[in-house]
Amino acid sequence: MTQSAIDDLNDLIAERVAAVKGRDGETLMAREHPEVLTYGVLGALQATGNDAVEEQMNAWFDGYREGPHYAVYDLRVDADGDLGYFAYVYHVSGTLNGGDQVSMGVRATLVCKRIDGRWLIVHDHESVPFDVETGLALTDLQPN
Amino acid sequence: MTQSAIDDLNDLIAERVAAVKGRDGETLMAREHPEVLTYGVLGALQATGNDAVEEQMNAWFDGYREGPHYAVYDLRVDADGDLGYFAYVYHVSGTLNGGDQVSMGVRATLVCKRIDGRWLIVHDHESVPFDVETGLALTDLQPN
Repeated sequence: MTQSAIDDLNDLIAERVAAVKGRDGETLMAREHPEVLTYGVLGALQATGNDAVEEQMNAWFDGYREGPHYAVYDLRVDADGDLGYFAYVYHVSGTLNGGDQVSMGVRATLVCKRIDGRWLIVHDHESVPFDVETGLALTDLQPN
Repeated sequence: MTQSAIDDLNDLIAERVAAVKGRDGETLMAREHPEVLTYGVLGALQATGNDAVEEQMNAWFDGYREGPHYAVYDLRVDADGDLGYFAYVYHVSGTLNGGDQVSMGVRATLVCKRIDGRWLIVHDHESVPFDVETGLALTDLQPN
């Protein structure tokens, strides 16, 4: 049971990586629980609901002239029963509309529940750390 | 089973809040899995192991002349079998050694496992968002 859940969750990550590559918002959104609790990289402390996720996702895709490229590092996956999580660092890169280059490591923690046999994301926490001396977000850290 | 797990996890949060108030590092550290994966508010993308947590915790306590005060908002808790998580925003406040006042909302996601009957933290993700225009971490957002 647990191994099958972990296999399912690994499939979900593979699906997610492919969907970002293809800018396939429909596949990404189909995994979001209607009441997903989001702690995003930018902006507000928190948001609830998949409308907020969709808006954030579209703004993210729209900001890139080339990319975003998305690679997953140091993935940790676990599950018990119908609850599971991943934690990983992703590297996002590309060229923004204004011409700036992005090459940023981001931490992601996704909590998932299996509902009617399908795993959905119920909580998504993504962030970069900051430098206490300068107050700046550390947007150029690289995964190992 | 699940309700009892959720009760246990609520107790763990109450224990954590009390331990921060009392600067009781021993109680906090007794909940950290030896291989805990940490995504911290400051510094590196990630760290593994409870030595890193202890060092971070001591630096945190030592940085405050008065405080840190720690209040939990918008707590979400769920568990299935021996896996559980919390997500919450905490408000941290106090006076740093240099005299600066802190009044900061921080997002926290803690994933826990029940091992030999005791819930331990296996993953801890804490962060603030940043402002894409200025590149600054948003260190003065307030929980609702």
